[in-house]
Amino acid sequence: MTDEPRLTHIGAAGEARMVDVSDKAVTKRVAVAEGRVVMSAATLDLVLRGDAKKGDVLGVARVAGIMAAKKTHELIPLCHPLMITKAEVEITPEPDLPGLRVVATVQVGGQTGVEMEALTAVSVACLTIYDMVKAVERGMRIEGVRLLEKQGGKSGHFRAGGDA
Amino acid sequence: MTDEPRLTHIGAAGEARMVDVSDKAVTKRVAVAEGRVVMSAATLDLVLRGDAKKGDVLGVARVAGIMAAKKTHELIPLCHPLMITKAEVEITPEPDLPGLRVVATVQVGGQTGVEMEALTAVSVACLTIYDMVKAVERGMRIEGVRLLEKQGGKSGHFRAGGDA
Amino acid sequence: MTDEPRLTHIGAAGEARMVDVSDKAVTKRVAVAEGRVVMSAATLDLVLRGDAKKGDVLGVARVAGIMAAKKTHELIPLCHPLMITKAEVEITPEPDLPGLRVVATVQVGGQTGVEMEALTAVSVACLTIYDMVKAVERGMRIEGVRLLEKQGGKSGHFRAGGDA
Amino acid sequence: MTDEPRLTHIGAAGEARMVDVSDKAVTKRVAVAEGRVVMSAATLDLVLRGDAKKGDVLGVARVAGIMAAKKTHELIPLCHPLMITKAEVEITPEPDLPGLRVVATVQVGGQTGVEMEALTAVSVACLTIYDMVKAVERGMRIEGVRLLEKQGGKSGHFRAGGDA
Amino acid sequence: MTDEPRLTHIGAAGEARMVDVSDKAVTKRVAVAEGRVVMSAATLDLVLRGDAKKGDVLGVARVAGIMAAKKTHELIPLCHPLMITKAEVEITPEPDLPGLRVVATVQVGGQTGVEMEALTAVSVACLTIYDMVKAVERGMRIEGVRLLEKQGGKSGHFRAGGDA
Amino acid sequence: MTDEPRLTHIGAAGEARMVDVSDKAVTKRVAVAEGRVVMSAATLDLVLRGDAKKGDVLGVARVAGIMAAKKTHELIPLCHPLMITKAEVEITPEPDLPGLRVVATVQVGGQTGVEMEALTAVSVACLTIYDMVKAVERGMRIEGVRLLEKQGGKSGHFRAGGDA
Repeated sequence: MTDEPRLTHIGAAGEARMVDVSDKAVTKRVAVAEGRVVMSAATLDLVLRGDAKKGDVLGVARVAGIMAAKKTHELIPLCHPLMITKAEVEITPEPDLPGLRVVATVQVGGQTGVEMEALTAVSVACLTIYDMVKAVERGMRIEGVRLLEKQGGKSGHFRAGGDA
Repeated sequence: MTDEPRLTHIGAAGEARMVDVSDKAVTKRVAVAEGRVVMSAATLDLVLRGDAKKGDVLGVARVAGIMAAKKTHELIPLCHPLMITKAEVEITPEPDLPGLRVVATVQVGGQTGVEMEALTAVSVACLTIYDMVKAVERGMRIEGVRLLEKQGGKSGHFRAGGDA
Repeated sequence: MTDEPRLTHIGAAGEARMVDVSDKAVTKRVAVAEGRVVMSAATLDLVLRGDAKKGDVLGVARVAGIMAAKKTHELIPLCHPLMITKAEVEITPEPDLPGLRVVATVQVGGQTGVEMEALTAVSVACLTIYDMVKAVERGMRIEGVRLLEKQGGKSGHFRAGGDA
Repeated sequence: MTDEPRLTHIGAAGEARMVDVSDKAVTKRVAVAEGRVVMSAATLDLVLRGDAKKGDVLGVARVAGIMAAKKTHELIPLCHPLMITKAEVEITPEPDLPGLRVVATVQVGGQTGVEMEALTAVSVACLTIYDMVKAVERGMRIEGVRLLEKQGGKSGHFRAGGDA
Repeated sequence: MTDEPRLTHIGAAGEARMVDVSDKAVTKRVAVAEGRVVMSAATLDLVLRGDAKKGDVLGVARVAGIMAAKKTHELIPLCHPLMITKAEVEITPEPDLPGLRVVATVQVGGQTGVEMEALTAVSVACLTIYDMVKAVERGMRIEGVRLLEKQGGKSGHFRAGGDA
Repeated sequence: MTDEPRLTHIGAAGEARMVDVSDKAVTKRVAVAEGRVVMSAATLDLVLRGDAKKGDVLGVARVAGIMAAKKTHELIPLCHPLMITKAEVEITPEPDLPGLRVVATVQVGGQTGVEMEALTAVSVACLTIYDMVKAVERGMRIEGVRLLEKQGGKSGHFRAGGDA
């Protein structure tokens, strides 16, 4: 049946492929994604004290996330290369988690969306936080990596439900 | 006080640095990490039907995870380069989630551990699953990315508590 | 004489350079390339039996070829970076060779052609097949890597002669 | 039967994996590979005249091959990263082909062989020659990419038969 | 005060970010940069004698500079990815220095300038010269890396003062 | 004459090559390099005020330098890949210049030195400073990039003369 959902990265014979976007319009596309690093209150406190004085854990994680957004198509096999025109990574403490919330916003004028760039920026920023803090707490977890919002392109405006 | 936990990637003046491991012993080190992609039952069914016949979503995600393990030190700013000697990524369906569980095992004979390699392999395999399935369900989430086990090195054997 | 063929990558003083394509039109460009991995009948049989059941040698080679197409400008020193909009790699057994035929199709809307992307995808897919099968047969050869067809751009339509 | 040849990159369940070399000995390993770019006599003459005066086509191809040897594990999904200790690429004209013969020699002290590094160096050097000369002759072919010799490691000394 | 100079890569809260260029016009942009490697007269002589005969030190440095221009956005964290349409690196001896002068010209049709691409090409070409000559003279210095000229984009035409 | 200085990266026939270090001893090797970004006093003040409050220009440049050290062998064509065990980048203001001084220290247990890694870290940190500040002053210059000290390996201890 023609309306059945399809995995667009899989060809008729079942082989993986990079979807053909040659004839899609070049439009302004934005994606926002988030994720969280869950840690103990003591670890969060250590990061924030360090950060208030020095800025480094969060600063390094922000840079890592932005650089990873540019590397997305090298990491995700079937992602198209894109010349992103904006990338921002915000990291905010959530004492009730306890932990850190990472939000990435990526923009492009192109033929495909930038969800993967935003999600990759979030994931690598979270991994970088883990790396810099792991000597203190190996049991941290990365949770809730997801797309919050997506604008532009044929599939229209997507906004995540729930407690974003 | 000398026993206060410290962020080893932060120098005395607060600057980020790659920790000096020059004098650490070369030992066999293993790390196992996991993560999950949570999706609707219908999406999982579509992936598995596709996969039973074609192998491609899970196959591509496995390859992406293995290749990402080798790229870890390019993504995580303060990670040491390592010549990993083994990398495996297993992906298994969890109908009750519903979703897919990704487990990565990485091994090295080296001076630092491979936690970040295993966690990066898991994250990129999860992102690749998201990429290949997103046309069908944009609301998928990556959850529970964490270290399951770590052997070798001065910090000894780590095994995650709980419901691994 | 002005019509003598010239090596466009060589400047007036003989130095290598990236050709200036700043004023070329952005047009739709397609390139198709092929190559073959020649092996014994027994090795081909082993690959195909494995593949019928599991899909992995050919699946991994396809992914490697697609990812390599995106890396072409990092490998070939004077190639322009391009944002390819489509990449496909097909691998088919040729029992009479015996061996495997790899065909790559790459597309872009850009100022230069994608021959190198298609040829690089073919070469890396062939190398990946060699890598995964070499424990069984070290004497395999990669033969007949060539451009089959090229469309778009000033040089017009190229189609290889002979037994493509 | 236990002595049946196996594809070592395929796990018991058919999934791709990076073979575990953790327990293999670190030995000196050398690999030599070759390949040829077949072109018309007029094109070969143009390259060689250019080269006698300027050195650039062959010079750029040699550099590209050496740099590609270092990137092998980024291109071939299941290749182990290696710290190669030597890489050389020789390119010699073969007027009777007519064309150019590329030979790469790679050496390492490591746990796995460097066949793939030598074959990748040859392939990328050949692709670079194609790129620099393609404006003059699009119908060139890359032929006979194969391993000539391999020393070190458990599998012992391999030397290609035939007309190397 | 609104006209105070600002660091555009720093957000309102002080965090690093990739500047948003989504709404900037696509225009033709050119940048020219230079730098010098200062060495003893004897070393310069050795390089030039070698180069007259073989072309290799300067030839390899030119290729390295061109390839680095394409990698700029991977090296400079907040640089936008760009599809450069031209890159040239010229290296000329300056017997009075004594040393070598490196000039890089990069061009693009894009939304941001290519100063960083030209400066990165110069820096990496200089580093490559250092690498190939260092066995003879470890005390060489890279001096005067700077932007010579920039055209296109909102900030208009820049030309360095002084003794360019 | 056998004692004439030689360019070790140039083979007998004049071709570029990666020097064979297979038989060199694995020893602890350290290299320290420096460089300076020269700017106006007003620009330096702007950077430092920004930095006192936010840490970002210097913080991002430090991270860029460390990451570049790991990429050295991808940038410098004939450099051997190395698994560096330590990398630090210090950036200090020099009001009398006026400008910023960048010092990088890199360490490895390996068969070749890490001069190029330290010099590359310095160069890329300087370029990153330029990038983040260029909107305010395009005329900045990178000066005095040089090796300060090198320990380990056959060539012994090197220390730069002069006003380091």
